[in-house]
Amino acid sequence: MLEPFDDAYFMKKALQEAEAALDRGEIPVGAVIVSDNRIIAKGHNLTETLTDVTAHAEMQAITAGSSFLGGKYLKDCTLYVTLEPCQMCAGALYWSQISRIVFGASDDHRGYRKMGTQLHPKTQVSHGILASECSKILDDFFKARRRLN
Amino acid sequence: MLEPFDDAYFMKKALQEAEAALDRGEIPVGAVIVSDNRIIAKGHNLTETLTDVTAHAEMQAITAGSSFLGGKYLKDCTLYVTLEPCQMCAGALYWSQISRIVFGASDDHRGYRKMGTQLHPKTQVSHGILASECSKILDDFFKARRRLN
Repeated sequence: MLEPFDDAYFMKKALQEAEAALDRGEIPVGAVIVSDNRIIAKGHNLTETLTDVTAHAEMQAITAGSSFLGGKYLKDCTLYVTLEPCQMCAGALYWSQISRIVFGASDDHRGYRKMGTQLHPKTQVSHGILASECSKILDDFFKARRRLN
Repeated sequence: MLEPFDDAYFMKKALQEAEAALDRGEIPVGAVIVSDNRIIAKGHNLTETLTDVTAHAEMQAITAGSSFLGGKYLKDCTLYVTLEPCQMCAGALYWSQISRIVFGASDDHRGYRKMGTQLHPKTQVSHGILASECSKILDDFFKARRRLN
């Protein structure tokens, strides 16, 4: 059972965003930003829809979260994202000084850890939350795409 | 004299964008994207105006350039930017597969080289174009800001 408001609860919300990306034919990655146990921003990958490589789930969520708060720093916030952030998104999170990042599935090829991207010293990281579900939606997407090609 | 269309010519255009940022009280960084000797996108730092850490000059230019081209890759394009890109912007440029990056001033603290960010293997880099002018506008901005504080 999901206990509000634990990490699994909010990762499930990020997974719902990944499903919204999937419904648009996008690589299914979703994110939410939480402040004081409240979701203040959501985002899902829109790179194809917007023909814009910068339109990752995390970027949408950072922009929306800052807009909600009326300030550009996310110091008392947690980002939940279904896939490990890339260099770009980790770089944006660095500037945001976000308190905590929680990601589901690891990205062993393009993830920020493999690429050596630096997070802000104040940012804490947890990972592996609902990792199977977060990986499965991606794996299913790529399998289906290969069948179509 | 600036010879259309050499690197100094386009960096001067990026500097004009930095001046537009300055006019808004933003840290003065500007960028243009050039395809086939034509400027297809411009951008300047808007992080304060938009209260959004993702609103760097390069990010605005990448989004605008992709929108102009109707595709998310900038394979036959050159980005001119007055300051060395950060992790976030270099990460976005990685995804864009841009052909060439030309930057003016180096950023020895937060620049992508110091931070170890990886560019796309196909991306070529030149730097130091109008470096003095690109540094001066930044130095003057920070000096003026210190006087105000």
